[in-house]
Amino acid sequence: MAVRKGSTLVLETTPRVISYGAVGSKKESEGPLAAGFDQLFPDSTLGEETWEKAECRLQKEAIRIAMEKGKVEPEQLHCLFAGDLLNQCTSSIYGLREVGAPFVGLYGACSTMAESLVMASLFLEGGFGEKAAAITSSHFCSAERQFRFPLEYGGQRTPTSQWTVTGSGAVILGKEIRGVKVCGVTIGRIRDMGVTDANNMGAAMAPAAADTLERFFGDTGRKPAEFDLIATGDLGKVGSDLLLEVLEKDGWSLSGRHNDCGLMIYDRERQQVEAGGSGCGCSASVLCAHILPALERGELKNVLFVATGALMSTTVVQQGESIPGIAHLVWLAADPA
Amino acid sequence: MAVRKGSTLVLETTPRVISYGAVGSKKESEGPLAAGFDQLFPDSTLGEETWEKAECRLQKEAIRIAMEKGKVEPEQLHCLFAGDLLNQCTSSIYGLREVGAPFVGLYGACSTMAESLVMASLFLEGGFGEKAAAITSSHFCSAERQFRFPLEYGGQRTPTSQWTVTGSGAVILGKEIRGVKVCGVTIGRIRDMGVTDANNMGAAMAPAAADTLERFFGDTGRKPAEFDLIATGDLGKVGSDLLLEVLEKDGWSLSGRHNDCGLMIYDRERQQVEAGGSGCGCSASVLCAHILPALERGELKNVLFVATGALMSTTVVQQGESIPGIAHLVWLAADPA
Repeated sequence: MAVRKGSTLVLETTPRVISYGAVGSKKESEGPLAAGFDQLFPDSTLGEETWEKAECRLQKEAIRIAMEKGKVEPEQLHCLFAGDLLNQCTSSIYGLREVGAPFVGLYGACSTMAESLVMASLFLEGGFGEKAAAITSSHFCSAERQFRFPLEYGGQRTPTSQWTVTGSGAVILGKEIRGVKVCGVTIGRIRDMGVTDANNMGAAMAPAAADTLERFFGDTGRKPAEFDLIATGDLGKVGSDLLLEVLEKDGWSLSGRHNDCGLMIYDRERQQVEAGGSGCGCSASVLCAHILPALERGELKNVLFVATGALMSTTVVQQGESIPGIAHLVWLAADPA
Repeated sequence: MAVRKGSTLVLETTPRVISYGAVGSKKESEGPLAAGFDQLFPDSTLGEETWEKAECRLQKEAIRIAMEKGKVEPEQLHCLFAGDLLNQCTSSIYGLREVGAPFVGLYGACSTMAESLVMASLFLEGGFGEKAAAITSSHFCSAERQFRFPLEYGGQRTPTSQWTVTGSGAVILGKEIRGVKVCGVTIGRIRDMGVTDANNMGAAMAPAAADTLERFFGDTGRKPAEFDLIATGDLGKVGSDLLLEVLEKDGWSLSGRHNDCGLMIYDRERQQVEAGGSGCGCSASVLCAHILPALERGELKNVLFVATGALMSTTVVQQGESIPGIAHLVWLAADPA
């Protein structure tokens, strides 16, 4: 049984990570985490006819790799939890329809990797199945087309803008005895501080990340110093600075423990990504290409993975609405911790 | 602990329905279920400036009513499970942001009422919280604008088309001793039979409904005749006929037990809705305005609620893709059954 502490659930069955897959494209292959990816496509079309079909392919490959590595058959997957940035979660639905497993579609914008891991963990902890998967993706070109400008327009990017990762991550969890453990989860709340700039997602998401982290620390009595890494994703430079400032003001120092998936995946100086990486695929691929491998090797022992989402609708933002944010937290530990 | 039978979860803690709210607009007020609604707005703007803001308002009112009826405070809601048809689940995010509770965004198209009930039920069954809510909505005008044509275009409707319900339903579940019980759930699988007609959603969803119902009957050994009502939502006339045909061929007869939320909410002859009602708000408001009240009054004893979703992306359908469907099942029983 999980133990509820405030709004954090401490898991006792502790679902374990069986396997995972990280898929990226050219820009990710040029970044500092390239070596950790399972598959890197040399161009972002992935040989498909459209950007949307290319993004579907990213998820298809990520789950295929995770299933192969974990020797998991489709019928063993008792539930898939997945979603993405595209309208109607296109990449998840078309990318995963051939798996044939029970499917729960999620929408959490860039928080989806944590949201899906939270739900898959609770599904196992509740005794509802033996294995479950959490999957998400993003694609620079499909995201630009949908949320901002057609690529052909060649618009200039503002310094606060972030570069959507072309990538996917898939994690299969199970009730195994060994493996990286999911020790707890904190479900995010919708936070809205009135940001209306569609090119400054970091600022829209930072208050949500602060809210979730403060609830987690308050609920569990844990201190930031107990964690090797507190990885937000994807606040980028602007959002990360804001997060640290907000937390500092509330008396929490992440002193040397914090990093952001949007700052880890690219070399900002060299790769011209402005404030950093973003997209569901950002935290998903950093988790699967870097954090989980480091936990497996014991280089990291105790990690908070806090994926953040800007819940932006272009339609209502054009109608003058602000951009709410959300952040879900997953507490991961190496085995043995 | 839930008991897993095949891919159906039979719930032993049996989460109970504490309260619910059904909200609609003018067309719903002219339909046969009008008397069961808690609130019916005389025009579909709800006094808001845009269709999207009107739809947000529907969810805001539905959860407010459910909370008032159940005397539930925001801090007692340990999780909200919600989603809707609008891109980025706008109505849920903007409609529910003021509630302030932990939020899990879902995307299941018109299956969302069942998807959110499944997740809220499992959340309680797993011991993760005391109370949880399931909410969704749809709006004829925001859906037409997003998925088909601007209303101003005045396009003719095909006979297979369905009329998106302007409505919302919110259900609060808890671990109470009394109340309508959630006895089991079957999570849907993505089914795709190659339908490409965006004006024939019923046909896209019928195979998914058949798949979920056949799994439920196979898993539990229950017979259709044991249920007073097997309510699919929202297959409409075309999809309902297809469902019965598919099931008949596979040896299952729903003989007099089946009805469809899309056929229940409007008078098809009188209200010019072609093949019937549709939208997340269709099954949600039929559940909250008709099915749950009838279960509470004991007029219905044992019900299968099977909301169906056409997981249609206008972008990839324009790229030649077919429309996958999904159907989630919730087994509800009166107390005492």
